[in-house]
Amino acid sequence: MSKALLPGSTIGILGSGQLGRMLAMAAARLGFRCHVYGDAPGPAFDVSVKSTVGSYEDAAAIRAFAESVAVVTYEFENVPLAAVSAAGLSAPLRPGAKALEIAQDRLVEKTFITDLGIAVAPFAAVSSPADFKTALAITGGKAILKTRRFGYDGKGQARIAKGTDLADAFAALGTDAAILEGFVPFDFEVSVLVARGVTGELAFYDIPINTHRDGILDTSSVPSPLGLDHAARAREIAGAIAEALDYTGVLAVEMFYAAREGAEALMVNEIAPRVHNSGHWTIDACAVSQFENHIRAVAGWPLGPTVRHSDAVMQNLIGDDVDAWPRLAAEPSAGLHLYGKNEARPGRKMGHITRLRPRADVPKSG
Amino acid sequence: MSKALLPGSTIGILGSGQLGRMLAMAAARLGFRCHVYGDAPGPAFDVSVKSTVGSYEDAAAIRAFAESVAVVTYEFENVPLAAVSAAGLSAPLRPGAKALEIAQDRLVEKTFITDLGIAVAPFAAVSSPADFKTALAITGGKAILKTRRFGYDGKGQARIAKGTDLADAFAALGTDAAILEGFVPFDFEVSVLVARGVTGELAFYDIPINTHRDGILDTSSVPSPLGLDHAARAREIAGAIAEALDYTGVLAVEMFYAAREGAEALMVNEIAPRVHNSGHWTIDACAVSQFENHIRAVAGWPLGPTVRHSDAVMQNLIGDDVDAWPRLAAEPSAGLHLYGKNEARPGRKMGHITRLRPRADVPKSG
Repeated sequence: MSKALLPGSTIGILGSGQLGRMLAMAAARLGFRCHVYGDAPGPAFDVSVKSTVGSYEDAAAIRAFAESVAVVTYEFENVPLAAVSAAGLSAPLRPGAKALEIAQDRLVEKTFITDLGIAVAPFAAVSSPADFKTALAITGGKAILKTRRFGYDGKGQARIAKGTDLADAFAALGTDAAILEGFVPFDFEVSVLVARGVTGELAFYDIPINTHRDGILDTSSVPSPLGLDHAARAREIAGAIAEALDYTGVLAVEMFYAAREGAEALMVNEIAPRVHNSGHWTIDACAVSQFENHIRAVAGWPLGPTVRHSDAVMQNLIGDDVDAWPRLAAEPSAGLHLYGKNEARPGRKMGHITRLRPRADVPKSG
Repeated sequence: MSKALLPGSTIGILGSGQLGRMLAMAAARLGFRCHVYGDAPGPAFDVSVKSTVGSYEDAAAIRAFAESVAVVTYEFENVPLAAVSAAGLSAPLRPGAKALEIAQDRLVEKTFITDLGIAVAPFAAVSSPADFKTALAITGGKAILKTRRFGYDGKGQARIAKGTDLADAFAALGTDAAILEGFVPFDFEVSVLVARGVTGELAFYDIPINTHRDGILDTSSVPSPLGLDHAARAREIAGAIAEALDYTGVLAVEMFYAAREGAEALMVNEIAPRVHNSGHWTIDACAVSQFENHIRAVAGWPLGPTVRHSDAVMQNLIGDDVDAWPRLAAEPSAGLHLYGKNEARPGRKMGHITRLRPRADVPKSG
């Protein structure tokens, strides 16, 4: 505990969105103050002691920001590496730059995971339309073409199937750094939320099953239908990735599950080196949320309990879903969370609701 | 719902302490912004969009504050009535001035409660040492002398027993507006936390049992040993008080329980027209906390569920209790809350911890 930040210390957060907001609120619970740096005012500004608007490319401004705080963390993985490295010169950067470097590039990420002996969908680099022939031989004819960098929530992606005009699909990406990923049939998607402390200890939340709507996460529910053995394997995979990254904080690892004869049933889809939408249910269903455990980890504190006290279904409120707030607020046994965004644009994450039920199983001690 | 505040509206909070802080954090969960007014910077400032330092006696400043917000609420009952009335000219004031007016004066409060047919400990006004003879005849020889106004956490109180120098005790109060309250033996203290919405609907949290240390709340635990019938009576009492005050928000009613042959077992100790320390466990053990239900009520929203999902023991961290944070943070199944206060003075509330256990009973539906 010698290096733990004292309560009252200031934590720096890169990114002013809803994840930064929920991180700042979790930090406040523990008596920390937050300084948020964002390229525009955002939901996190409203709950922080200090906020700075600046470009993520402005290394001097980010350096000054880092000098004002005891530790720097980030709420999204697309913050430029140069900026983060600038911050890291003035304050500890947690999770480290390595996690960002790997998670920012799908090709690098999948190679890194494969090198750990962990299964991913077949993939191949595509730098020009001429690469498709070789790539499709690896991935199979049904595949997804993605930008290697800066894609999220289904953006920067195109489905490839028989008859797709490959040159058009490639041109539409607007970059020649692309990856083709084989489409692997799966039964369902889960994600592992693992917290890793500064001294390497791991804590796992129960594993939610995720559903999507229009390429955006719709629901995350615990418990998932994943059996005990597969859940153990899923934790093993996430733990191995966290360790290989020498990670500090909460890491999310999305996985596809498919029952396969004699083959690994779990395949990593992608990792997010940050708190994650599929862990929002932990605010309402656990004594210590993913946000607080991320803060604890980056502050050098002991990790908090991850046990869930209730079964939970988290549902995102996207775009004008949020207009239903009067009805949602009147629901029994639900926690409603609105992010304070002014405008409900289509596809924009405006809030979420977590519906709780008593655990159907009997909680085990230990 | 026609008068409900829209998400994004600004809520004004009078008072910058930890209750204001937890109110502001609950408001943020629902997408509200907060403007906090306090006579000194305090824990609530760190989590609010806007904060103003000003005297509670400065009606013009408070009026300006009220003009900047959609509704005004308060975190403590000793804010001067004149100031609150000034605020009420510019924005709805919830809970109303009536609750403050009554709760600010122990004599007025006890008279009000008695007039509702609700039992309180015997009491009598004391305006000079000459009043003791009559007063002691009402209260009995073991009694507590209290200032009528502005006492809290055992401050402004003196125990009266055989041999007490009454003139000295009276002089030590520093005011001639005093009340003598009979010391009534009791088995334990409970408190009822009731939320009342703008349209008069009531919602009750489970009733905690409270213990004290050095005159300050030490623990609040649910469930309490109160039987079903007495719990129902306790809710009836608190509901009647909330209705008589035409109250909007969360009201706390402290009660003594004593098994008595043929007499009312519950006796009201005091009321607090605000969120209350004995309800802090609701943050960790309920989907919607007392803080959020207070915000919902003053915002004209539907009240949220008050059911508890876990058994809970809340313990205050007073003064240097908070130095144990590294150990407390490592506890399993506990939510730790630190208020971000710089200096751990003796008697100062620095934080609290809520220890959760699965409910020992089987939750009932409905």
